[in-house]
Amino acid sequence: MNPGRCAACRYLRRRCPPACIFSPYFPPNNPQRFVSIHRIYGASNVAKLLQQLPSHLRTQAADSLYLEAQYRIEDPVYGCVGLISLLQQQIHDVERQLAMTQAEIAFRARHPQAVESNLLNNVGNPSFSNQASSWFM
Amino acid sequence: MNPGRCAACRYLRRRCPPACIFSPYFPPNNPQRFVSIHRIYGASNVAKLLQQLPSHLRTQAADSLYLEAQYRIEDPVYGCVGLISLLQQQIHDVERQLAMTQAEIAFRARHPQAVESNLLNNVGNPSFSNQASSWFM
Repeated sequence: MNPGRCAACRYLRRRCPPACIFSPYFPPNNPQRFVSIHRIYGASNVAKLLQQLPSHLRTQAADSLYLEAQYRIEDPVYGCVGLISLLQQQIHDVERQLAMTQAEIAFRARHPQAVESNLLNNVGNPSFSNQASSWFM
Repeated sequence: MNPGRCAACRYLRRRCPPACIFSPYFPPNNPQRFVSIHRIYGASNVAKLLQQLPSHLRTQAADSLYLEAQYRIEDPVYGCVGLISLLQQQIHDVERQLAMTQAEIAFRARHPQAVESNLLNNVGNPSFSNQASSWFM
């Protein structure tokens, strides 16, 4: 049962064997998927990476290899390490904002007289947040 | 001037040419760096990836390729895509916590009578946060 060559065997111009390691993960209707992976890892390295895994985990591995290859093609210098740095910076920013907001609550609880009603109406206003955060720095 | 073979040429058991593409990024005192990269990408793919970049960007590219190779060795199924998913989940969680805390400030500003002094002393206590957040859900 070999109705047609998979995208990998087509690209490599070879016969698609019945137990082809690529066939389940690189269907012929999506040739670009193998082209990207081949460009970054090469066919033999992808085959090796898939073969060392139990078959029920190979789909996820092929998907993640494809994603990493796409990141590397889009950003040949940093690949997905660039995205990781960006996300880590984003977490740092949101955590800092959260700490400031929690400090704001604690301050209001302990010094209600310092918080005038017109300031209270400015919650969510960036200039208010900057002013409030300066209390805790 | 070729005082010694680089880590790549040593691993590949070949002469290290004067203009070796690997030599500046794989010094002989860190052989593991090339072993990891070679295991995931293969030597010719790494050479190709480095050669297509201007020389002032190759150090960063070699570093990021090494990091990605390490992630893939540690997690052969998801590689650094696993870390990206984890970081995205972490951002989602912190953003949700921030939104809840901001809503808490807004609620207190508009309903000061609902916030009793003994509740105020519980700022930062997770059970208080859960109780407070239920007001806004």
